[in-house]
Amino acid sequence: MGNLRNDGSGTYTCVQLARRPAGLPVAADWSLETTDIPGLGLGQFLVRITMISLDPAMRGWLDDRPSYLPPVAIGEVMRAGAVGEVISSNHPRFKIGDFVQGTFGVQEYAVSDGTGVTRIDPKLGTQSMYLGALGMTGMTAYFGFFDYGRPRAGDTVVVSAAAGAVGSIVGQLAKINGCHTVGLAGGPDKCAFVVNELGFDAAIDYKNANLRESFQQHCPAGIDVYFDNVGGAILNTALSQLAMHARIIICGAISQYNAESVTPGPSNYLALLVRRATMQGFLVFDHAGEYSVARKRLAQWAKAGKIIAPETIVPGKITDFHEVFMRLFAGDNTGKLILDISGH
Amino acid sequence: MGNLRNDGSGTYTCVQLARRPAGLPVAADWSLETTDIPGLGLGQFLVRITMISLDPAMRGWLDDRPSYLPPVAIGEVMRAGAVGEVISSNHPRFKIGDFVQGTFGVQEYAVSDGTGVTRIDPKLGTQSMYLGALGMTGMTAYFGFFDYGRPRAGDTVVVSAAAGAVGSIVGQLAKINGCHTVGLAGGPDKCAFVVNELGFDAAIDYKNANLRESFQQHCPAGIDVYFDNVGGAILNTALSQLAMHARIIICGAISQYNAESVTPGPSNYLALLVRRATMQGFLVFDHAGEYSVARKRLAQWAKAGKIIAPETIVPGKITDFHEVFMRLFAGDNTGKLILDISGH
Repeated sequence: MGNLRNDGSGTYTCVQLARRPAGLPVAADWSLETTDIPGLGLGQFLVRITMISLDPAMRGWLDDRPSYLPPVAIGEVMRAGAVGEVISSNHPRFKIGDFVQGTFGVQEYAVSDGTGVTRIDPKLGTQSMYLGALGMTGMTAYFGFFDYGRPRAGDTVVVSAAAGAVGSIVGQLAKINGCHTVGLAGGPDKCAFVVNELGFDAAIDYKNANLRESFQQHCPAGIDVYFDNVGGAILNTALSQLAMHARIIICGAISQYNAESVTPGPSNYLALLVRRATMQGFLVFDHAGEYSVARKRLAQWAKAGKIIAPETIVPGKITDFHEVFMRLFAGDNTGKLILDISGH
Repeated sequence: MGNLRNDGSGTYTCVQLARRPAGLPVAADWSLETTDIPGLGLGQFLVRITMISLDPAMRGWLDDRPSYLPPVAIGEVMRAGAVGEVISSNHPRFKIGDFVQGTFGVQEYAVSDGTGVTRIDPKLGTQSMYLGALGMTGMTAYFGFFDYGRPRAGDTVVVSAAAGAVGSIVGQLAKINGCHTVGLAGGPDKCAFVVNELGFDAAIDYKNANLRESFQQHCPAGIDVYFDNVGGAILNTALSQLAMHARIIICGAISQYNAESVTPGPSNYLALLVRRATMQGFLVFDHAGEYSVARKRLAQWAKAGKIIAPETIVPGKITDFHEVFMRLFAGDNTGKLILDISGH
């Protein structure tokens, strides 16, 4: 990993955005750059990155349009959550040897002033868990489900991308909360995983099932909470199966992120009126002040075996970023997808 | 009106649904039937109907699909709100000479047991106001705007169909609440009415303006509350112009009621995520227990001149129902549309 000399100088590799993808990103959308490790200013520290988080939301950051964060600029290091080890520091609170989590980007080293950085507490969980169940993934599941889903015991909760990073946590939170929990996943293997490993009450194989009939079978009293990670036809069909006063939480729309033209909106949205229902979007960043409380609760549930934190950790080099990132859109990972560069 | 003999017997005319409309209703979708005025059972009273309410929602009741009310059956009297005079009574609370408002249907006489019937208090308002600003129209505006819009003084409030029955009231409630109020209406005359008579801060002529640019001009800080009566392109463009934590209230979708195929959903719905916004449907019926409080407040504002209750009252016969109903979809009425059959 990189080429760090004893005096702290050296070079490392980062992945920059070379051009904006049209549709599904291709390798040529990125450029690999070798950069000098900068010297540290006052209050800064240097992180040797060990694991990089790969999330569907990253695709949205590549498009040049107004969103909740500015788009990644051409020539800028690709934005990504990551964990790593502090290897030098001019910062009063982050010491050499600390492991930390932050938005360090797709690169081997990062300089930070500590903004938005969390020190990893090994008593709570592992490094990878700080990207998954105890990181932004877990925070997204926790605040999305509890604050916007407003679940009551006995509610029927439907989760799309149920075998994915966020969906797998949401389903387990719903079970902890006494809800009837139905997950959507692609293919029989993922559906088996959702039921047998994650403890959902039922799974719907959206690639092979009749969605409407499956909802009617598994949600006979209608859907009280629909946690949506995918958009598209699944969202639209879920709208047609709402219970009264249902809550739809818009967390993401992976089915649409790579679309090259305008994708159809949910034509069944008038069900919101008929069912007096709510469709609400949220962003986890708005809950930053409550992360530490949520992280402790999630860690307790994980320790108690009430939550498993599924992970797909791919060992590799920083140069493998594109290939691993693409697995998100091929739908062939379960749980949190992580590129582990600690061995290189 | 009808043919009532001194002994209380006689015949009257009602409008029944003859077949389900495909798209815009045509005259042949209705049948006029002459019926005997029935005798009154215990606890019943007979109403001679004077005014019939014409509402976009009535179109939805004609389609054979699950909704918040069962569809009007073929051969059934068309459902409609109406006001009239009690002319005979076996009911302890409704006396001869009382004027009442209820879902009496499109007919000259109705028998009622008092369920859902409100006695008109002439100190609060006129008969037509009990169909408009003090009736379901006013209730819809009041609960939709206050309970679901959750307006704060200074909010930018956008109302579609702003010259219509509900929209005209919503805009005036927004002004009372200290909001910056922008209405959408079709054509320069309606837009002038919205600003000059109803007191909106601005109007957008959706038939002639560039919607996106008009929103940007009149809502420079984005839309905090969008009260939607129309759906379609206006809803979709409003989604692209939301302020943070915006609230979209789905009250209706008149642009879609006569569509003969599936209409596109709002493709910009992911703005809900970016703007942490809420899109919520509601039905006024859920607030029945609070109607009398809302009616008193609306009547006070009307007396104080803070609300005008625009009405288009068309004198005619029950046989004119279809022609007057169609004015709703031609968009050539302002305010509450009423068929006044009291002269016949």
